[in-house]
Amino acid sequence: MTYFGRILLLSILLMVYVDPSKAVCGYESCPATKANMVNIHLVPHSHNDVGWLKTVDQSYYGYNNKIHHAGVQYILDTVVSQLLQDSERRFIQVETAFFAKWWDVQSETMKKVVTKLVNEGRFEFTGGAWSMNDEADVNYQGVIDQFTVGLKFLDETFGACGRPRVGWQIDTFGHSREQAAIFAHMGYDGQFFSRMDHNDKDTRMNNLTMEMIWDASESMSGVSLFSGMLYNFYSDTPGFCFDILCTDEPIIDGDSEENNVKQRVDDFISYAKNVSEVYITNHIMVPMGGDFQYEDAKVNYKNMDKLIKYINERQASGSNYNIFYSTPSCYLNSLHQSLESWPNKTQDFFPYAHEKNSFWTGFFTSRPTQKRFERDGNHMLQVAKQLSVLANLTTEQHNENLDYLRQVMGVMQHHDAITGTEKQAVSDDYDRMMYEAIVGASNNARDALRILANMPNGEFESCLRLNISECAFTKDGADDVLVTLYNPLTHSSTQYVRIPVKEESYQVTDEKGRTVPSEVVPVPWQVLALEYRPNDTQHELVFKATANKIASYHIKKVESSEAKPSIKKIDPREDESSETVVENSLVKLVIDNQTGRLKSVEMNGVSEKIVQNFGVYKSNTSCAYTFRQSGDIQVFENDFEFTVYEGSLVKEVHQHVNDWISQVIRIYEGVNRVEFEWLVGPIPIDDKEGSEFVTNFKSEISSNGVFYTDSNGRELMKREKNKREDFVSDLSRQPVSGNFYPVTSRIALQDDTKRLVLLNDRSQGGASLEDGALEMLLHRRHLFNDGGGVGEALNETQYGKGLIARGKLYLILDSATDGDTVTERKTEKELFLPFWKFFSQAGGVQAAPAKSPLDFNDLPQSVHLLTLEFFTENEILIRFEHFLDKYEGRVTSFNIRDIFDSLGGSAIRETTLDGNMPLSDMKRFKFHAQESGNKPASVEYSTAQHKPLEAVESDEASLFAVTLYPMQIRTFIIKTV
Amino acid sequence: MTYFGRILLLSILLMVYVDPSKAVCGYESCPATKANMVNIHLVPHSHNDVGWLKTVDQSYYGYNNKIHHAGVQYILDTVVSQLLQDSERRFIQVETAFFAKWWDVQSETMKKVVTKLVNEGRFEFTGGAWSMNDEADVNYQGVIDQFTVGLKFLDETFGACGRPRVGWQIDTFGHSREQAAIFAHMGYDGQFFSRMDHNDKDTRMNNLTMEMIWDASESMSGVSLFSGMLYNFYSDTPGFCFDILCTDEPIIDGDSEENNVKQRVDDFISYAKNVSEVYITNHIMVPMGGDFQYEDAKVNYKNMDKLIKYINERQASGSNYNIFYSTPSCYLNSLHQSLESWPNKTQDFFPYAHEKNSFWTGFFTSRPTQKRFERDGNHMLQVAKQLSVLANLTTEQHNENLDYLRQVMGVMQHHDAITGTEKQAVSDDYDRMMYEAIVGASNNARDALRILANMPNGEFESCLRLNISECAFTKDGADDVLVTLYNPLTHSSTQYVRIPVKEESYQVTDEKGRTVPSEVVPVPWQVLALEYRPNDTQHELVFKATANKIASYHIKKVESSEAKPSIKKIDPREDESSETVVENSLVKLVIDNQTGRLKSVEMNGVSEKIVQNFGVYKSNTSCAYTFRQSGDIQVFENDFEFTVYEGSLVKEVHQHVNDWISQVIRIYEGVNRVEFEWLVGPIPIDDKEGSEFVTNFKSEISSNGVFYTDSNGRELMKREKNKREDFVSDLSRQPVSGNFYPVTSRIALQDDTKRLVLLNDRSQGGASLEDGALEMLLHRRHLFNDGGGVGEALNETQYGKGLIARGKLYLILDSATDGDTVTERKTEKELFLPFWKFFSQAGGVQAAPAKSPLDFNDLPQSVHLLTLEFFTENEILIRFEHFLDKYEGRVTSFNIRDIFDSLGGSAIRETTLDGNMPLSDMKRFKFHAQESGNKPASVEYSTAQHKPLEAVESDEASLFAVTLYPMQIRTFIIKTV
Repeated sequence: MTYFGRILLLSILLMVYVDPSKAVCGYESCPATKANMVNIHLVPHSHNDVGWLKTVDQSYYGYNNKIHHAGVQYILDTVVSQLLQDSERRFIQVETAFFAKWWDVQSETMKKVVTKLVNEGRFEFTGGAWSMNDEADVNYQGVIDQFTVGLKFLDETFGACGRPRVGWQIDTFGHSREQAAIFAHMGYDGQFFSRMDHNDKDTRMNNLTMEMIWDASESMSGVSLFSGMLYNFYSDTPGFCFDILCTDEPIIDGDSEENNVKQRVDDFISYAKNVSEVYITNHIMVPMGGDFQYEDAKVNYKNMDKLIKYINERQASGSNYNIFYSTPSCYLNSLHQSLESWPNKTQDFFPYAHEKNSFWTGFFTSRPTQKRFERDGNHMLQVAKQLSVLANLTTEQHNENLDYLRQVMGVMQHHDAITGTEKQAVSDDYDRMMYEAIVGASNNARDALRILANMPNGEFESCLRLNISECAFTKDGADDVLVTLYNPLTHSSTQYVRIPVKEESYQVTDEKGRTVPSEVVPVPWQVLALEYRPNDTQHELVFKATANKIASYHIKKVESSEAKPSIKKIDPREDESSETVVENSLVKLVIDNQTGRLKSVEMNGVSEKIVQNFGVYKSNTSCAYTFRQSGDIQVFENDFEFTVYEGSLVKEVHQHVNDWISQVIRIYEGVNRVEFEWLVGPIPIDDKEGSEFVTNFKSEISSNGVFYTDSNGRELMKREKNKREDFVSDLSRQPVSGNFYPVTSRIALQDDTKRLVLLNDRSQGGASLEDGALEMLLHRRHLFNDGGGVGEALNETQYGKGLIARGKLYLILDSATDGDTVTERKTEKELFLPFWKFFSQAGGVQAAPAKSPLDFNDLPQSVHLLTLEFFTENEILIRFEHFLDKYEGRVTSFNIRDIFDSLGGSAIRETTLDGNMPLSDMKRFKFHAQESGNKPASVEYSTAQHKPLEAVESDEASLFAVTLYPMQIRTFIIKTV
Repeated sequence: MTYFGRILLLSILLMVYVDPSKAVCGYESCPATKANMVNIHLVPHSHNDVGWLKTVDQSYYGYNNKIHHAGVQYILDTVVSQLLQDSERRFIQVETAFFAKWWDVQSETMKKVVTKLVNEGRFEFTGGAWSMNDEADVNYQGVIDQFTVGLKFLDETFGACGRPRVGWQIDTFGHSREQAAIFAHMGYDGQFFSRMDHNDKDTRMNNLTMEMIWDASESMSGVSLFSGMLYNFYSDTPGFCFDILCTDEPIIDGDSEENNVKQRVDDFISYAKNVSEVYITNHIMVPMGGDFQYEDAKVNYKNMDKLIKYINERQASGSNYNIFYSTPSCYLNSLHQSLESWPNKTQDFFPYAHEKNSFWTGFFTSRPTQKRFERDGNHMLQVAKQLSVLANLTTEQHNENLDYLRQVMGVMQHHDAITGTEKQAVSDDYDRMMYEAIVGASNNARDALRILANMPNGEFESCLRLNISECAFTKDGADDVLVTLYNPLTHSSTQYVRIPVKEESYQVTDEKGRTVPSEVVPVPWQVLALEYRPNDTQHELVFKATANKIASYHIKKVESSEAKPSIKKIDPREDESSETVVENSLVKLVIDNQTGRLKSVEMNGVSEKIVQNFGVYKSNTSCAYTFRQSGDIQVFENDFEFTVYEGSLVKEVHQHVNDWISQVIRIYEGVNRVEFEWLVGPIPIDDKEGSEFVTNFKSEISSNGVFYTDSNGRELMKREKNKREDFVSDLSRQPVSGNFYPVTSRIALQDDTKRLVLLNDRSQGGASLEDGALEMLLHRRHLFNDGGGVGEALNETQYGKGLIARGKLYLILDSATDGDTVTERKTEKELFLPFWKFFSQAGGVQAAPAKSPLDFNDLPQSVHLLTLEFFTENEILIRFEHFLDKYEGRVTSFNIRDIFDSLGGSAIRETTLDGNMPLSDMKRFKFHAQESGNKPASVEYSTAQHKPLEAVESDEASLFAVTLYPMQIRTFIIKTV
């Protein structure tokens, strides 16, 4: 370090240390306001997508600025430098993914400087999760995990002053109720966002209901979140973007021909007046920032300083506008102190339409294979986290591997990642990161299994191409393979397992050497036809497996004489009957021999005519975000070729729809659902038009326009065709797309007697456009670039052709009265976190089965072990979820002393949902609801309904009793040293 | 100030003051280099046009960034902040106009910080004049003045460490020898530039002659300047623009998929290798910057830091590239220390062609009225400065007025101002500033005259619309007007004065009441036809006036009987003769009665057939910069109508060429030249083509391709058609435009017997395309926008029509052997600084004439009082110029003791040409010329040829003897207290 550098360092340290005032962050650090004035909270912020037009790293380093000017490293560099120059200045930092990347390369001096700014509330974290997640396509587990990662980084780095108080979902394309609940359970006092159906916004501006109390759970009364809608999107006041990326007028206050102070102040006050007229209190929040702004923060602050100065100077001549640097939390604090009462909100904010004819319902399905890959990532993350705890893996490399996947999954929740609204190159980079991270975490899983199975050389390979029925491990010489199944669910589970194999005979044996029934089924033609797929495994071996946590099965090639007879192939067109019945002990399917389509289903004692078909909405103006049909659906009129394969375990109808569509309809013995494995693509573009590819199931259930979709995989939301909760939506030009809703796990409809449900394996758009019908948007291909956003048409290709997607829908038909939606819940979990398959060469030896040191089978059936992971080296985070809603389950209690002991616990604390704050420290604002007069509408759920568990180093087992209300999740940190 | 602010201030003060090391600026502060390596001098700089696409203020404040992203205030803000963060970082500041504007609003703390950076040589002024002036269209007086203003600001602000050592003319469109001489006389050690004819550059790259010693004066041997041509324009290394305005790759050195350190270092070294191969020493200079770059200096420095780090790290593995932050002066210092010898250069670098078919000769004439207005500005500046000294005007307002005009004139010298290469809106703003500044300075002149004339209420109005023969002061009731003439020249002068009047009879009397002969001449038809000109003065009163410094004439309306007979109007077509002779005692013109054109001239005992005509080169690809003809000249074939007005004082031939061209050919009794007052416009654009409008004079003088043009109004440069000094220019496609040269005062040709000269009243392009012919580019109008530059076609309009321009050329025909070019010199001065006319209502009283307390008539006739102005409140700057060259004049000496005493001098010091450094302090590098072996080629002129005058407070008159060599200018500061 040079001499001058040392002096500079000394000076900065002086600055950091000589300040005798105590750190005052949070609400106490908020700027003073003036009671009789319009208080303008000016909020400097930068919106930094963790990938959109550029990859995460490109956006951080400022690479490829030709594509998009974005360089987050410089934003943080210059913002910090600018905050140092004036103690009035503030900034909110939102995306912790970027902040952490920057923080890692800062000097100790710089870290001290920033810590000081944080401790003074001037550099304030808002939102604070790893990314600003989407709310339509995400599963709640992904959201909770990515908040855990982000908030943990902030907590470890800054302690309490680093903890955000306010959610900041300003760019997310619509808002889910589950997200609001998650915020509430993490102790957030409120959230702000800026995307809402334009008709909804207009209504709210008229009614002064832009800010509201959101009842965030149907099952858990009292879980609410103050939620505010911004006036002008999340960008600057029109005409007042002082950013280097903008071209609005700076404040020119010199002795210059261009001096514009009077005009600029007039204009800003005029704008502030407009804003203040649609909000209740005498406070307004004016965000100053936008996408990747503040790269040259000097420009922003210099001009904002002047704006503030000259606006406040007017007070001397009677102006009643008071402006100052603030933050969303300080604005919220002012609202809270106002003692006003607020309207409430119960449903959610889907779908979003930014203008007429522009429903953002396409992104519910955009990039279907990426959406599925994200599920694989979460799957591996949960498996690896659990296994790391079970095997006590704590080496640095293992931690790094897990942290990387945690972070990558955090990135994937981003509202331009899982949504599919990023550029293709960015999508490719997400895939690269996910692949690398999954491989890394699968090494952890392997290492854990080596320990647990006492097989130091066991391969425990993960096959990441099972989605195309391929696994390198089984395709060549897989004469003797050990398949180890890991069950991330809480309770023991029985599932059918499928493994790609050659067309041979195999014997499957369990851990005790007992032969397990198995069958070999052909892989569908369209998979086999994939040019990029090696064709040496044309079949799949199917067997039924059971695993508590870990189970091993031995697969051995045998002479065909030893094996049971092969599966039976039936060509239905060969006989003269008009229909083909495919049935097992629980389910009966009828296929129309003429059309080749499903005709009816019988199960759970209910029979219903259910016709399935595929269809396309053509479109020239759909994009990654929006779905805009040009006309009505074009269904497939042609008859489908089909073949039936019947075995004793599985029965499959292989449908050949056309050159680019095929499907397998499948039922397993003993499984009470019908599986539809669709394969679509390349969607033709010869007609130069885009396609929204759907499948629909038409029944005669009198659903009367009503249907249900899940909210991020948890509570069901009631939807009604052509209706919205709070406003009238103009659906005239988009009667289809405007009725689509995000389906992340389940869509259902029913009448008095029957209930029809579809479960899916990734997020998709879903609708009920006719009574009794459910429609799912499976795949999309477009040629239209909307110009305003991503700058590319959503036209995914692979090896030069349109992308092929493969996925599954699961149909359940049930009685509406005697029906058991609990089964749907359990199935959701099983589909979301099925067995993970690990492959090893058995080498002729029947290996000792791996054993889990922990067993959660004693937990009540309605309890889901949502999370089990190392939190720190000596702490384990564990989450228990009551996964039934208030209609399905009841309060349940259990004792976790055994778990505590098995984990070697020495102390335990209950925390907020994110794990980072002792629950007893959580104090949230109470806002008054307009309906209930002065009574607080938002009772603090966690404190009101249960006492936080704080059984620290006590032997008293009763202290380990955990009670869960329906839909409740409780989070604990168990100390192990 | 907040608490934190105080701490910050304290810390910064600590930084500024505790550093015990002494300030080391200049060459001593240069970075260490490595002897056996290629030393890469990385030079951070920003090129900030003081007006181009945006006005000066718009560029400073960052207004109108839609038009051009430019905000100089932020550049300085962030650069200073970045320099503070690392003592290795450097920056050069060039345009003092912007720096001064920024400095004025800085806090004391910031000023101390910057001063420290300057004192350490890290924030280094390079160039340092008020603007980076043009070198083609400027007069030397404007250049000297604007360097005086810039360097004075730096000297007063920073002292010696603020003084630039190196010229930085990187964007100027070609380079004049006079500019190099001015640099030398101001003590600069060298200059760098980056625009040179591409064929010249190619040749020099092949010959290793990119850097040279320029013999900057033909008359003053030993005046030389080291001059270096940059390798890649003045912008960053291709691919290495790290600026926020750029999109090149940043250095990505993190653990990232995008990590590009190896590739980036490879690329940069590869580039450095290419550069080093065309320069002599093991040093190369790589400028890092460009137009308005460094607005977010963090981005630049952060990446340059990394580049430096990783390039130098390679040295450990054998790389011999050494890179560091440097400055042009440090680079020059390394070259000087290398003891290499350098090629020399004697002519200049005009015209510039950046590529084939692209000669930048259009800007020699672009915006002809603005070019003329600039002359008016200089005229008033010299008048007001002199008058302020004579009347001892030193109030704050007077100083402000003068400073403003000084600064505006500094701006006008800018290479996008006087050149006419700015956008129209910027040109309008220049006009606005000049107008305001001239009005301000004319108030000074008025106040001075009130004192000197003892007329406290005297109007002394300046008429700024005399260019259209209009003056508000004389048009109504101007029955009794006092015209006060101020003569800014050194010696008493006699000139014809023209004043717009009504068609009446007037009596002109001198200060002693004696009647002075006068005549009333009609204003030409095309001026009268100007729609925007009030038509109440259709005539001009002409009389011959003599003024030493100040003279007054009384103009009184009289009854026509009292007046002499009116001027005689002759319509030549009325008689049958084939020609009309117009002659006076010195000059005889012959007009062809058929064509109406000038046919021959006789004067100075020489007679020559001289035919004048007008012509147009059509063009579709000319722009403000370039002149690209589509084909040959189209001369006017039609016969010109003409009328002759003959008086005893003046004889005029009024030619009507067509609807948009007219001319007055004029001779005055006793004046040995012919005046051509042309009026052109609106140039038609009906044909959708652009026009280059010229006039040419064809004689039979056998000039053999050779002609002469002045260099910034001083020495004549020999030009030869289709030839260049050092290289072969490809003129095949532009035989016309490639032969144009800048003419700022004079163009001449001759053979053994006759010499033909044209003087002009503003800068214009001029050429001799045929032997004996001179051609001047008068006016331009284009429809083509070259796209790469100014972004507008050069299509000037006024009141909705094409701009009309009016100007004068002066023809002198003389003997080549007996001829007296001294007369040309004197005429140049008289035309450049004629009498300034002030108007007052006489009120019937014969006012006491204003008297100048100073008289310079005793100075030798070859000496020009170039400057007389207050330098500070108690100091007067005075410059004496020997305005003859070595062929015309000889060494002359004179004593200035009387002047010293008259000014109330108490001490005197001689300084560098700019006035800011005692001449005795000037120490310049001596570079070795290749031709002369080891003998220094550049003897220090001023010290070698004369001893600086340092007669401080001495009574000895001999110490006040001043000797001037031909073309020498000496600058003195006289202390008056």
